[in-house]
Amino acid sequence: MLIVMKQEATENDVARVCEVITELGFVPHPMPGESRTAIGITGNPGAIDPTHFADLPGVAEAIRVTKPYKLVSRDLKHDDTIVRVGDVEIGGDEFAIIAGPCAVETPEQTMEIAEIVAATGVKLFRGGAFKPRTSPYSFQGHGKRGLEILADVRAATGLKIVTEVLDTETADLVEEYADVLQIGARNMQNFSLLRRIGQTRKPVMLKRGMSATLEEFLLAAEYIMAEGNYNVIMCERGVRTFADHTRNTLDLSIVPAVQHRSHLPIIVDPSHGTGKRHKVIPMARAAAAAGADGIMVEVHNHPEKAWSDGPQALLPEMFKQLVADVQAIHKVVAAASRPLAIL
Amino acid sequence: MLIVMKQEATENDVARVCEVITELGFVPHPMPGESRTAIGITGNPGAIDPTHFADLPGVAEAIRVTKPYKLVSRDLKHDDTIVRVGDVEIGGDEFAIIAGPCAVETPEQTMEIAEIVAATGVKLFRGGAFKPRTSPYSFQGHGKRGLEILADVRAATGLKIVTEVLDTETADLVEEYADVLQIGARNMQNFSLLRRIGQTRKPVMLKRGMSATLEEFLLAAEYIMAEGNYNVIMCERGVRTFADHTRNTLDLSIVPAVQHRSHLPIIVDPSHGTGKRHKVIPMARAAAAAGADGIMVEVHNHPEKAWSDGPQALLPEMFKQLVADVQAIHKVVAAASRPLAIL
Amino acid sequence: MLIVMKQEATENDVARVCEVITELGFVPHPMPGESRTAIGITGNPGAIDPTHFADLPGVAEAIRVTKPYKLVSRDLKHDDTIVRVGDVEIGGDEFAIIAGPCAVETPEQTMEIAEIVAATGVKLFRGGAFKPRTSPYSFQGHGKRGLEILADVRAATGLKIVTEVLDTETADLVEEYADVLQIGARNMQNFSLLRRIGQTRKPVMLKRGMSATLEEFLLAAEYIMAEGNYNVIMCERGVRTFADHTRNTLDLSIVPAVQHRSHLPIIVDPSHGTGKRHKVIPMARAAAAAGADGIMVEVHNHPEKAWSDGPQALLPEMFKQLVADVQAIHKVVAAASRPLAIL
Amino acid sequence: MLIVMKQEATENDVARVCEVITELGFVPHPMPGESRTAIGITGNPGAIDPTHFADLPGVAEAIRVTKPYKLVSRDLKHDDTIVRVGDVEIGGDEFAIIAGPCAVETPEQTMEIAEIVAATGVKLFRGGAFKPRTSPYSFQGHGKRGLEILADVRAATGLKIVTEVLDTETADLVEEYADVLQIGARNMQNFSLLRRIGQTRKPVMLKRGMSATLEEFLLAAEYIMAEGNYNVIMCERGVRTFADHTRNTLDLSIVPAVQHRSHLPIIVDPSHGTGKRHKVIPMARAAAAAGADGIMVEVHNHPEKAWSDGPQALLPEMFKQLVADVQAIHKVVAAASRPLAIL
Repeated sequence: MLIVMKQEATENDVARVCEVITELGFVPHPMPGESRTAIGITGNPGAIDPTHFADLPGVAEAIRVTKPYKLVSRDLKHDDTIVRVGDVEIGGDEFAIIAGPCAVETPEQTMEIAEIVAATGVKLFRGGAFKPRTSPYSFQGHGKRGLEILADVRAATGLKIVTEVLDTETADLVEEYADVLQIGARNMQNFSLLRRIGQTRKPVMLKRGMSATLEEFLLAAEYIMAEGNYNVIMCERGVRTFADHTRNTLDLSIVPAVQHRSHLPIIVDPSHGTGKRHKVIPMARAAAAAGADGIMVEVHNHPEKAWSDGPQALLPEMFKQLVADVQAIHKVVAAASRPLAIL
Repeated sequence: MLIVMKQEATENDVARVCEVITELGFVPHPMPGESRTAIGITGNPGAIDPTHFADLPGVAEAIRVTKPYKLVSRDLKHDDTIVRVGDVEIGGDEFAIIAGPCAVETPEQTMEIAEIVAATGVKLFRGGAFKPRTSPYSFQGHGKRGLEILADVRAATGLKIVTEVLDTETADLVEEYADVLQIGARNMQNFSLLRRIGQTRKPVMLKRGMSATLEEFLLAAEYIMAEGNYNVIMCERGVRTFADHTRNTLDLSIVPAVQHRSHLPIIVDPSHGTGKRHKVIPMARAAAAAGADGIMVEVHNHPEKAWSDGPQALLPEMFKQLVADVQAIHKVVAAASRPLAIL
Repeated sequence: MLIVMKQEATENDVARVCEVITELGFVPHPMPGESRTAIGITGNPGAIDPTHFADLPGVAEAIRVTKPYKLVSRDLKHDDTIVRVGDVEIGGDEFAIIAGPCAVETPEQTMEIAEIVAATGVKLFRGGAFKPRTSPYSFQGHGKRGLEILADVRAATGLKIVTEVLDTETADLVEEYADVLQIGARNMQNFSLLRRIGQTRKPVMLKRGMSATLEEFLLAAEYIMAEGNYNVIMCERGVRTFADHTRNTLDLSIVPAVQHRSHLPIIVDPSHGTGKRHKVIPMARAAAAAGADGIMVEVHNHPEKAWSDGPQALLPEMFKQLVADVQAIHKVVAAASRPLAIL
Repeated sequence: MLIVMKQEATENDVARVCEVITELGFVPHPMPGESRTAIGITGNPGAIDPTHFADLPGVAEAIRVTKPYKLVSRDLKHDDTIVRVGDVEIGGDEFAIIAGPCAVETPEQTMEIAEIVAATGVKLFRGGAFKPRTSPYSFQGHGKRGLEILADVRAATGLKIVTEVLDTETADLVEEYADVLQIGARNMQNFSLLRRIGQTRKPVMLKRGMSATLEEFLLAAEYIMAEGNYNVIMCERGVRTFADHTRNTLDLSIVPAVQHRSHLPIIVDPSHGTGKRHKVIPMARAAAAAGADGIMVEVHNHPEKAWSDGPQALLPEMFKQLVADVQAIHKVVAAASRPLAIL
């Protein structure tokens, strides 16, 4: 059920509807839009009688939701969601770029790369302190020490920190340090973690699982939003297919597909999506052209010495060129009216 | 590194080698085999100097391990591992059958199905108390109440309980009730959960992830074993492909592939693997013929009323027939000498 | 449109219906079943008025076909189709085994393998004279010379010959020599070739394309049948997926899926389906258990010297064991009543 | 084997090397580059003794080729190949656009769409006269009549015609009418057809098969080139994966992958690649940004009445906007130096 308020509805009207929803034992999710507010309802086991709302002041209509997701849907909120990380916007007019090393290795390496990133005008820094690794014997990240290094980078450069939260046990710790909490592909359906992160109000970047369908991807975001955290950024990072010329197959068509169904911003990670440097640049450009709201790329000053994923890290000069390219392409796309994507 | 002991090595010899490994700051994993014991070493950042072990009494040789996994490997333990659940063996001569409803719904439904299962001579009962669901709005299982119902079933029928552990938060609770802890496909690379379950000594059934490669599957088991829990049962449950005539594509070739590389038992779940009743029976038979150590199937007395996955649940009479079929096929395969599979 | 005749309808009644169909400008396909005959109609651009047939003697009913395929469908012909190759039946009570080398290499090699095959009681021999090869520079088969060698094998051993027809140019030639015309996976949607082979009356073995859905697979058979050749044997040989532990992922669930929808027999090729000898045996057994009507396997007396696909060829003694295994498993499945598969 | 000539080598020197290759019983393939000529050799069963060439005038070096393909490789020809269709270039500085309806339906529909296409300045027109269809009962194209309609379009508008050649039987006919011969995805490994088209000298557009790897795609082109037709344009059109939000998964990463290994131009078909109009525009832009040499899109004046694939056809005004977009993006990419893609 979805309550759409009239354009002239007051804050009091919205509050009253939320109250009624709460009294019924359900959870209201008000989503202010540019012209009017809609209120999603979760927690109801089945259909709700719309007459509960029909006569409340300010209510335009009560709509039954037939899609499996509600809060992520454009039906609930027509306008694009802009997620704010300090003064940086993701999903707004600017093309968001997140860059940095795969893993925090040493304070020196991290700071050097951060300076390269900051020098290009990019404002979001990535780096893993907790690393999900296929083998129990691989480097698993520096943990808390890594988070401290990232905090030092922030203090020194003003860059905002995007870093992965691996599990509920370390969620408090990561939440304390990070500006954006990243949920990795392997955890896209770790529902306990999704719920836990739904309880913070910090922005979340949710990576698509390796074989997740569009619906599963949207429902994973719904898990987070159902807990009240509406600051979700979707992220395509490649899926598993038979193709063997890249590590994963970057599925850029998910960008217009997500935008078609959801108001949430979506970015693309061409580094994990391809696994090879010479494909990262063309695919990052392609992401911008496909209408993505941003990209996340790995940059390393000495990729040949990187502790993980060196072959996909960009060299500093490549990265600088890439920043210019994607901004120029983003301008073309923005001018050509993104609404076309939402036909 | 892998220390192979001489056939005549004593328990003291083994203990001494373990002591040396511990003194070096690493973790020893002794694996007794039929004719001799091997000792895996984990916790070492790189190669270990074999001369540490060369002169210890009872040591036959110290072998460098070049595969990314160690403890799951047949190189470490040549004989098949038999996982014991009370007096039931998985990986031994008998073909193991785990059956029951997808979810614990009501005490009556659960008990009725359990009686059907027990009447066929099957000794392992499945039923979900904590259910991983794609949508946050779907039935998520009865939780603790579900576990209590399962405990009542065990008390009444003697059936051993196989049930899913969804997260580290509820792991203690599930461990208290379950005889076998199931890790679901979505959690195959939930490394924190794998480590937590590695710390119990209860048998674990590890389901293959929806797009997991053989190596990733084995390394997930390695995460559990590296913590000291060697009672791991692998489980194929279908993978994601383009094919749309089944919910997932059951990849039975993983059975000989796992047996070729690992000493761990492997079973097959044709219910989730196909999603449709009329394919469950042929694929269950095929699993037995492919050399699997067992199957897990869903049975329901009223599948049309099942709260989840009704279309894949077998009716009681079908299930009874199936039990007879797979045992007959298992006999053919066993007589034809399984070793052929490990050429 | 599908005309179902009454049980007591005479041959004359069937002939009269066919005549009417022909007069309307369409093509009749009478399919005699155990209890009654159905007549498929092709060549019609859209729906046909059923009143054309309602009053003809012997007509039980005229049914509109809503599936995209007609002649392959169990709706048209309820009984299993048995394809006869001389006195060998595929789709009947016996489990059909086709064995031989990947390619005809030399007269000696071919004859030696044929003798091994014949000695086990197997009656169908495979061997490629025209080979589809990914590279233009690989051995492309001996062509006509290869067919002559196969004819010599038939003359000497009585084995029936199954061999691939690669294109319409060589179709006449292959048709002259072969007992069963094999259409390879790469040609499953070579529609001109399908139509050409539809014009012979020799049995055809149609391999599933590497990424063919069930519907595409059935429609490829429909192309052949629409030309009047009803002797089609379906063959699963593995599909392309992300999984890298086998060359292809053998999708045995297609066996009950084809049997559910179609009356055509289906066999399995575990040699191409896995690409590795130690997986061929378990998967061949699994094919029998899944209810397949037969298997096709590669056998070689000196696989290490084979000109193509040596690693998947069975050694003679393995093959002998396998023949015994699959027949024993087939007996179990047959006794357990195959109809269960067609629930 | 690959003979690289010195920069100062004369035409006579090249001719002499070709002569020697021919005398040895092999086939020479001279490929002039900007600074020097290389000569590929095919038809040799194995390695060739390089001393045959070492002392010939103008020879710089004889290089053993270790990749499975030769003529498509950048090792043989470093400079990008430009395929010329009249005065239109594919693979040069301009971004090539091929547009038109899926199928030639009527003379009026075809001409109307052609005029829309021509009005945007686009010079290449697509339209199917022979249509590969999954069902034998679907519209298969107008055949020769369709080709005549296309010839009329060319005469009236000056547009060059790109149309599919389905089989060797109709190859002569299609060759007579078409400016570019399209080989469809289903025929990518129809080796007889590839060889036949290798014998014309008309440009060929080779679509990637639905589950073709990079190597198979390049080897299909090699089949054509080995017959002497070097005018091959590669075309990505989406591959089969588990993802269900698009008809196929457009794999844009194949663009830099092909450019990295081969000198051949590559274009992208986002219409078949996505199957839905609202995804065609973003993916066409993304193709340009990924560095593709062009796109092929479907345009229809009345998509709701199209005989096939209406939902993916662009409306005229959308198409016009798209042409502007992709040219603007192509300019950004060209300025940013494509060589980066070939690192």
